[in-house]
Amino acid sequence: MNLSDRNQLMGFSPIRKFNKYANAAEKAGKKIYHLNIGQPDIKTPTSYFDAIKGFNQEVLAYASSEGNPDLREAISNYFKRVDVDFTPDDILITNGGSEALMLLFLTLLNDGDEVIMAEPYYTNYLTFIQAAGGSIRPITTTAEDGYHYADRDKIEACITDKTKVIALVSPGNPTGSVLTKDEIKMICDVAVEHDLIIMADEVYREFVYDGKEMTSFGQVKEAANNVVVIDSVSKRFSACGARIGCIGTKNAEIMSGLMKFAQGRLCCPTIDQVGATALYNLDPSYFGPIKAEYDHRRNVAYEELQKIDGIVCAKPSGAFYISCKLPVDNAEDLLMFLLTEWDDNGETVMFAPEEGFYVTPGLGKSECRLAYVLCEEDLRKGIQLLNKGIQAYLNK
Amino acid sequence: MNLSDRNQLMGFSPIRKFNKYANAAEKAGKKIYHLNIGQPDIKTPTSYFDAIKGFNQEVLAYASSEGNPDLREAISNYFKRVDVDFTPDDILITNGGSEALMLLFLTLLNDGDEVIMAEPYYTNYLTFIQAAGGSIRPITTTAEDGYHYADRDKIEACITDKTKVIALVSPGNPTGSVLTKDEIKMICDVAVEHDLIIMADEVYREFVYDGKEMTSFGQVKEAANNVVVIDSVSKRFSACGARIGCIGTKNAEIMSGLMKFAQGRLCCPTIDQVGATALYNLDPSYFGPIKAEYDHRRNVAYEELQKIDGIVCAKPSGAFYISCKLPVDNAEDLLMFLLTEWDDNGETVMFAPEEGFYVTPGLGKSECRLAYVLCEEDLRKGIQLLNKGIQAYLNK
Repeated sequence: MNLSDRNQLMGFSPIRKFNKYANAAEKAGKKIYHLNIGQPDIKTPTSYFDAIKGFNQEVLAYASSEGNPDLREAISNYFKRVDVDFTPDDILITNGGSEALMLLFLTLLNDGDEVIMAEPYYTNYLTFIQAAGGSIRPITTTAEDGYHYADRDKIEACITDKTKVIALVSPGNPTGSVLTKDEIKMICDVAVEHDLIIMADEVYREFVYDGKEMTSFGQVKEAANNVVVIDSVSKRFSACGARIGCIGTKNAEIMSGLMKFAQGRLCCPTIDQVGATALYNLDPSYFGPIKAEYDHRRNVAYEELQKIDGIVCAKPSGAFYISCKLPVDNAEDLLMFLLTEWDDNGETVMFAPEEGFYVTPGLGKSECRLAYVLCEEDLRKGIQLLNKGIQAYLNK
Repeated sequence: MNLSDRNQLMGFSPIRKFNKYANAAEKAGKKIYHLNIGQPDIKTPTSYFDAIKGFNQEVLAYASSEGNPDLREAISNYFKRVDVDFTPDDILITNGGSEALMLLFLTLLNDGDEVIMAEPYYTNYLTFIQAAGGSIRPITTTAEDGYHYADRDKIEACITDKTKVIALVSPGNPTGSVLTKDEIKMICDVAVEHDLIIMADEVYREFVYDGKEMTSFGQVKEAANNVVVIDSVSKRFSACGARIGCIGTKNAEIMSGLMKFAQGRLCCPTIDQVGATALYNLDPSYFGPIKAEYDHRRNVAYEELQKIDGIVCAKPSGAFYISCKLPVDNAEDLLMFLLTEWDDNGETVMFAPEEGFYVTPGLGKSECRLAYVLCEEDLRKGIQLLNKGIQAYLNK
C-alpha cells in the first residue's frame, strides 16, 4: 500500500531532520550551540507555572472546542491593546500557531490552489499547504536586497485564477524583515481587489527594532473580511512547549469553517490554556526588557557574522532570526560536517540550512537561518564556532 | 471566496453542535445531566497533577516532534503489559487520539479512497476522513443485532479498488461492542490478504465487561505491518483535557510518513507529556475499581433505559457508551425540545443524536448515544429525565 500522494510530496522538516545527528553528537559528549531552532533561552514568566500549579479541579476535563472563555477574553484584551478589534468570538484557540496553519489551509485550499509567499519562507508553511493540496507561488527575495518583497507589481504578478491566499510572516521568519504600515495597507488593497485571503502570521509582533512601528494586518478595517491573523504564546512569552496559539478573524464564514475541524479535534489542552491566560494578562511592560535583550542579541549576532569571510547578510528589523548566505556551496553538507566530523575542543554549532525554505529549485543551497535565541556569550561562541567550522570545512 | 470543497462537505460535530443551546440553557439556570459526551466524572489520578506541579524547568521548551522519550518508554512498557510489542520507536505522541486520526487519514488517503467502518461510527472519523478527501464505506449494524459487524463476508463485500483502510473502535464508541480474539484475527487475515491498513482505536481497552477477554490488534504478529493502534490517556485515565494520545505501529513507512506532519506541527504540549508519563506508569491495579465502577454504571443505565416504553437497545460489552433507538421519529428534534422548551423542576438531560453517526441517508434519525460517565445517582436521574422528556415530547 502506498502512502497518500500529498504525503509523498511532503518533505521532512529541514529544521528538524538533522536532530538525530545532533542527538547522536550530544550523546557522544559534544556540546552543540543551538542556533538552528527558535527556542529562546528566555525564562517563561512564572505566572504561567503559578497558574497551572493553581489548577485545582479534580477532573482534567475537555475544554470547549473554540477555547476557554477566559483565554479568549484575555487574548481579545491583548489585541485591543495593540489596536486590533477582535472580540472573544473572533478568536479560535489552536494547538500552537502550527495547528492554526494546518486548519486554515485545509479550510481554504482545494487541490491545485496557490498561496503567494515570499521565499525564503518558514518551511512548515509548505508542509501544511501541501497537506491541503496547494502550492506556493513564490516572490523570490535575496539577502542582497534585504529580503524585500512588499512590492505591488511583484505581488500582482503572482496572482493567477488559482490564487486563494497571500501568506505573510511579519516580523519575518526566517529573514527578520518587517512590513511597514504603508506596505500592509497596500497588501490589503491587493487582497480586497482580487478577493484573496491574507494570512498574517504575527507571532513576533512585539519584536521590532530600530524604532520601527509595530503594525498589524488586524488594524486595517477596510480589509477586515479578508484578514486572518495567526498568534501564539510560543515566542512572545518564551512558552514554546505550551502549544497554545490562536486564529483571529472577523470573517465569520472562515471561522465557521474552522470550527468544523476544531470540533473534530475536540479541544486544546486544558491546563496550558489556564497558563496561557495568565501570559496574555501580563502587563505590557513585560515586553520592554525582552525586546531590548533580543535587540542586543541581534547586534551581537550581526557583528560576529560580519567576521566571516565572504558572508552576505542583511541586519534584520524584527523577530529573532537572521538569514545569511555562507561562503560554501552546500549548507546542508556543511551542517553534517559540523555535527558528525568536526568539533573545536568538543564544541560545535547548529543552524537551519535554507534550501528547504525555497520552492524555486536551486535556490538557498548556500544559505542558512540563525536564531539569536541564546544569551550573548553563547551566541558569540556559536557564531565563532561557525566561522571556525567553515574554515575547517573549506580546508578539508 | 469559497471555502475548500472538503470543508463544505464536512459537517459540524453532531455531538458538539448542540453545545450552544446547552450553554444558553445552563446560563438561564437549567441543570443539564450531560450524557452526551464521553467526559467521565472519575477523578484524574493525582499523580498527573503531582507530576506537572513538579515540573521545574524555567523555560517551557518545545518537546521533540515524536514525543518525550520518557513518555514513549512509559507507553512502550504499558503496551508490553498488555502483550503488545511496541518499542518506543514504534510510538508517536499525538495531541489526543483526535490528532492521531487526522494525521493518519492525511497520511494514508487520496481523494476518492475508501475506509471501511461499521455504522453507527464515532462521528469524528467522518470529519477526518473527509478532511483527507476520503469516504466511509459502511457496514450497517442495528441495535436489534447488537451492532455486530465482524463478519468476513460483510467486510469483504465492502472492499473495492479504492479501499485503503479498515477502521475499528473496539471496545466500541458509540455502541460498546467488543471484538473477540477470533474476530480480530479474521479481520487481520482480511487486511493482509487485501493489502489494507487496520486502524485499531483501542482507547477503551481496559473497559470490557462480563469476563470478556481484552484483546488488541497489536497482538497479531502476522499482521504487524498492517496494523496501526490508536491510544489516548483521555478515557483510560479520565484525563480528557490533557490531549495526549499516540499512534503505535511496526510499519516503518507509515511512521515515517506521519513524522512529516509531526515535524510540521513541531510537538505536543510539554507539561502534559510529563503528566501523561506518570499516568502510563501507574500500577495496572489502578484499573480494577475504575472498571468495576463503569460496569456498575452500565447495569444502571441499561436498567433505567429498559423502563422507557418502546426503546430498543443492546447491553454493551465495553467502553462507556450505550446506543439505543428511541420511540421518537427525530432524536435531534427531541434534543432541541429538551434543551430549549422543556424541564422537570429546572432539570433536563442531554444525549448525542446518532443521525450524524451514519453515512447511509435516513438511518439513525431515532437513535442516540448515551455516555454512562456520571455517578449512579446522576446517571439514574438523567435517564429518568429522558423518559419524562420523551413523554412530554410525544404529548406535545
